[in-house]
Amino acid sequence: MNTFGELFRLTTFGESHGVALGAVIDGCPAGVALTTAHLQAALDRRRPGQSAVTTSRAEADRVELLSGVYEDKTLGTPIAAVVRNQDARSQDYAALAKEDRPGHADKVWRERFKHRDPRGGGRTSGRETLSRVIGGAVADALLAREVPALSVVGWVSQVGPLGAPTPGPGLTRAQVDAHATRCPDAAAAQAMEARILQAKSAGDSLGGAVTVRVEGLPAGLGEPVFGKLKARLASALAGVGAVTGVVWGPAELLSRLERPGSQFHAARPDGRPGDVYGGIQGGLSNGEPLQVQVLFKPPATLGSHAKQGRHDPCILPRAVPVVEAMVSLALADAWLLFLARPHRP
Amino acid sequence: MNTFGELFRLTTFGESHGVALGAVIDGCPAGVALTTAHLQAALDRRRPGQSAVTTSRAEADRVELLSGVYEDKTLGTPIAAVVRNQDARSQDYAALAKEDRPGHADKVWRERFKHRDPRGGGRTSGRETLSRVIGGAVADALLAREVPALSVVGWVSQVGPLGAPTPGPGLTRAQVDAHATRCPDAAAAQAMEARILQAKSAGDSLGGAVTVRVEGLPAGLGEPVFGKLKARLASALAGVGAVTGVVWGPAELLSRLERPGSQFHAARPDGRPGDVYGGIQGGLSNGEPLQVQVLFKPPATLGSHAKQGRHDPCILPRAVPVVEAMVSLALADAWLLFLARPHRP
Amino acid sequence: MNTFGELFRLTTFGESHGVALGAVIDGCPAGVALTTAHLQAALDRRRPGQSAVTTSRAEADRVELLSGVYEDKTLGTPIAAVVRNQDARSQDYAALAKEDRPGHADKVWRERFKHRDPRGGGRTSGRETLSRVIGGAVADALLAREVPALSVVGWVSQVGPLGAPTPGPGLTRAQVDAHATRCPDAAAAQAMEARILQAKSAGDSLGGAVTVRVEGLPAGLGEPVFGKLKARLASALAGVGAVTGVVWGPAELLSRLERPGSQFHAARPDGRPGDVYGGIQGGLSNGEPLQVQVLFKPPATLGSHAKQGRHDPCILPRAVPVVEAMVSLALADAWLLFLARPHRP
Amino acid sequence: MNTFGELFRLTTFGESHGVALGAVIDGCPAGVALTTAHLQAALDRRRPGQSAVTTSRAEADRVELLSGVYEDKTLGTPIAAVVRNQDARSQDYAALAKEDRPGHADKVWRERFKHRDPRGGGRTSGRETLSRVIGGAVADALLAREVPALSVVGWVSQVGPLGAPTPGPGLTRAQVDAHATRCPDAAAAQAMEARILQAKSAGDSLGGAVTVRVEGLPAGLGEPVFGKLKARLASALAGVGAVTGVVWGPAELLSRLERPGSQFHAARPDGRPGDVYGGIQGGLSNGEPLQVQVLFKPPATLGSHAKQGRHDPCILPRAVPVVEAMVSLALADAWLLFLARPHRP
Repeated sequence: MNTFGELFRLTTFGESHGVALGAVIDGCPAGVALTTAHLQAALDRRRPGQSAVTTSRAEADRVELLSGVYEDKTLGTPIAAVVRNQDARSQDYAALAKEDRPGHADKVWRERFKHRDPRGGGRTSGRETLSRVIGGAVADALLAREVPALSVVGWVSQVGPLGAPTPGPGLTRAQVDAHATRCPDAAAAQAMEARILQAKSAGDSLGGAVTVRVEGLPAGLGEPVFGKLKARLASALAGVGAVTGVVWGPAELLSRLERPGSQFHAARPDGRPGDVYGGIQGGLSNGEPLQVQVLFKPPATLGSHAKQGRHDPCILPRAVPVVEAMVSLALADAWLLFLARPHRP
Repeated sequence: MNTFGELFRLTTFGESHGVALGAVIDGCPAGVALTTAHLQAALDRRRPGQSAVTTSRAEADRVELLSGVYEDKTLGTPIAAVVRNQDARSQDYAALAKEDRPGHADKVWRERFKHRDPRGGGRTSGRETLSRVIGGAVADALLAREVPALSVVGWVSQVGPLGAPTPGPGLTRAQVDAHATRCPDAAAAQAMEARILQAKSAGDSLGGAVTVRVEGLPAGLGEPVFGKLKARLASALAGVGAVTGVVWGPAELLSRLERPGSQFHAARPDGRPGDVYGGIQGGLSNGEPLQVQVLFKPPATLGSHAKQGRHDPCILPRAVPVVEAMVSLALADAWLLFLARPHRP
Repeated sequence: MNTFGELFRLTTFGESHGVALGAVIDGCPAGVALTTAHLQAALDRRRPGQSAVTTSRAEADRVELLSGVYEDKTLGTPIAAVVRNQDARSQDYAALAKEDRPGHADKVWRERFKHRDPRGGGRTSGRETLSRVIGGAVADALLAREVPALSVVGWVSQVGPLGAPTPGPGLTRAQVDAHATRCPDAAAAQAMEARILQAKSAGDSLGGAVTVRVEGLPAGLGEPVFGKLKARLASALAGVGAVTGVVWGPAELLSRLERPGSQFHAARPDGRPGDVYGGIQGGLSNGEPLQVQVLFKPPATLGSHAKQGRHDPCILPRAVPVVEAMVSLALADAWLLFLARPHRP
Repeated sequence: MNTFGELFRLTTFGESHGVALGAVIDGCPAGVALTTAHLQAALDRRRPGQSAVTTSRAEADRVELLSGVYEDKTLGTPIAAVVRNQDARSQDYAALAKEDRPGHADKVWRERFKHRDPRGGGRTSGRETLSRVIGGAVADALLAREVPALSVVGWVSQVGPLGAPTPGPGLTRAQVDAHATRCPDAAAAQAMEARILQAKSAGDSLGGAVTVRVEGLPAGLGEPVFGKLKARLASALAGVGAVTGVVWGPAELLSRLERPGSQFHAARPDGRPGDVYGGIQGGLSNGEPLQVQVLFKPPATLGSHAKQGRHDPCILPRAVPVVEAMVSLALADAWLLFLARPHRP
């Protein structure tokens, strides 16, 4: 199904080579400040063609708001927004139309749906994430009003074999966006960029990881036992195109998992318990920063197709806003569910 | 919320020190062979006290079927089953009742719900997984009728720093259960067992990984774009108690992620594409074996509490049936959704 | 499916001649005063055998609380309760087992489910409403804490051709229960009782209407456009066994519908608009008393079967607590959804 | 919420005076014949300005298909369609903007949402039904492929005090549409038309009933006990704007309800049981024609406002396609759920 969320719900539509893509956000309360500019700014962050490390396609996507907003505030009614496929360029895909592209979902999709648009990936295209980003922008607008201290910031923490040191608290999206690779560590960013350009010129591709951190999240969000925050975020993130893993806690958790509990759970110098839990206990946010690593596989478009330049050799930099959007959507939903539970002693 | 699934739905209830735990399975079609013995056998596999490597608590849980089955076949009505807490032994927890146990969710749960049963973990206790196992047994019964070739088999693939070679195809649950550690590789199992006993005597604990493999799964299961099989399984697995990560594909995928796409997507010797995708493409099962690694953190009960012997130093062996149950539940649900989509050319 | 509600959810199970019937209520916040006695009192109100006008079966149903309550307060976890079928008496139904009972759903159920328990109605039996009444009692407990001024009171407003005057505001359940027919107007009650006894002795049956009124309901409940309070209540009520119609507004609305709008919408003597809307406008409660008529068809058990005395010649009196329960369930759910929508200017 | 259905889901958006209204239909399988012309034809049937008995507003609504269809067949992806508000004419409403219109939901909506578009009814406007009609057209397209013998036909069966005889089987939409009042009985239609014109000239309004009949419906649709077909249809229909009641069975059922069971359940001359059940037993369709009456209150716009001619004195004729759409949506959903339940002996 194409709807995400229980109370704050995103419904998406649109094929990569159809008339338009779009999103309907239902359940956003009235009175939230929201304009077309908010949505456009979010889309611009996921736009390709912004640097040498991404595809050279210039998707000048313009969003149009169709409903749900009046005088720059939400009405409490469904918010619909569309982006027209101005530049479908299906001729580029004409040669591929007849054959299933290796490494893509073309074959399995065709076998399942039987009737398929042969031009491009349809709903499996990366363009589908555009609708997620629109939804995430609305979620951000709601969260900015409801939980002003909250920040959801992702960054590229690994490209192929190259990692990056974990940034300190207070990281902003602007600090991340200052780097073409969206890795906020200057040295690591430089190395990653070189590696991506090398892969690009070789017709090769690279995977890696995006880490996302949530600061300022109140304790108690999540619904045991099947709506745990951990499960909701895992579902939100694992559903993104090339994701192959979701791991909780800071980047070093994977290695720490090998250690015995006495080390894993050891208190920090300041006496507080280790933040290795990733900000969640018993399925609920615990008031600590929440951190998740999202693992991506390398794109499957290789060789001469890749060299044509209309594909990303490494989607990590452009995946950052998508990962953030999915986290914000899950949190907006969890927040409304939190309000719906007036627990008392 | 305490319901999992869209069409094949498991609703669970019960606190670790309450009257009973149980499960209601709704949406199972009529005519599926199911008896109390099926459910009891599934519960016995997750029962503690089966070997030196698990807790010495003897939870002689007996399941009672309350509805939904007539003459050993399901009626198409809700299947309810309960397990009474015969041996609540709350006195063991009396000393802990007043204080929040470090590393547990006691504090965050108390702050959220305000009214809490101080005896044990309540719904955050590992006993809650008992209801999942009941649900999984019903899912298995349905899948055995609908997709006879299907097998869902999990095993312990890592304990602390100790890994194990990936077993070949055709692995059975019986082969896994033959080892106390539920690692089907004899040498690795022996090393893991020694490491667990060492941790136990030291009042320490160990995390690791359970890998689960699905063979015989038809192509096309999953619902793009937010009900992708990947997302459903991630949600199912990330919601289990101590899980800290869900990673797709075979065990070596984590290291392979560092390699460029040309190696990652390289064809296998037999010319078929690499099975690194974990059996899923475009959100749909692709007919290949599906494999997932589920990462667990070490238990938080340490020191003198741990030495009392009523806690597992390593929950991995007992987590295997729980992981299998969650996968089966997600697949049973995906199967019914598959039937509800009569796609035609 | 056997779950009702979005945030306050009732899941029911149990066949009329199985081991037990029961209910799981999920989503009730913590700290709500609730005991076994609450649930038992609710069940006793729907119990047959209380007067000459109902079946002579003595269903001494005892409810057992399995989870979700600690020290007489809810825990915020699922509340499970069961009632064992102590008196299944399937021999009474033995003769009918082979044949589909005319006027019952036996045939259509058998054709749909293919495997059916031939002893009695299974899930189509009136005993299924027992689980609804348990759910309603929990909903009432929540609403009593959250909206203390709220009252949900139903009464028998019609039996066969016999109507009753609409009672004034402030009617209580005790006032209704004082009459065997659950019609609070003494004269009408007497006439109805005579008519029911006459039908009973003739092996005949009677339909009619239950009217339910909600007082003290805050304005604004309901979720446009598909979760309107009107739609939620209609769904809740139309799903009850023998219901053949749901009509909004006071009893006289049906005749008023024939009048032109200038009369229909005419202001009341006190200058406020007519309360003909049934307390709902634009899908939302409007702060006025909400009133609904629920129409029931006559039971299908007739002739010699009916004379055996194990069937109600008129289910209206016993339907009152069931109708109230469904309204309370819908309102508890709507209340939690209301909390989840922080609309602001 | 603004989504209807479980597996065949309609999500609607748009305010009466916003940029556009629209619908996203999710869950429609691939390969269903569908074009813009289908949707436009459905919209044209609900369009006002078609005769003297409806409003004189000429809403020349043009629908645009944005996604989900390729080469005149559905893709199995979400189908999005929009209708732009070309002729918002908000100046007509300018005078009303400041004050809440009596009999409308303006006040309760303003109190609930706090931020409201003062131009017209927003989501409470009758224009919202446009999205329902789009959804119904897609449901009809699916049902035409899956259940070719199915017909869903509604007609105006009552206007104010004027009833109409129940038409015989095989009634078509074309036969209904041949009359401006959408009452297929010529004599009754003439009387209704005269009464409506009289009300119009008097600045008055009229309510009444639409009856809808489903023929060719297979037995077994519906999901006990809370997803009964009766409950799903009641929810679908009660959510339509001015609906005040939903009554099962043929038009004469209301009077028949007063009769004892021996008459109510009496067999028909051909020996088959009475069709008084409305085609549903035990919550499931029983293979007989299904019939429902939908009661509407008179519009609240009266006096000088009504005489301006931009309001319907009687919405019944235009409500017919909306009632049909809601029934088709509920049936399409029930059909997919039916496929998802492989019951076997």
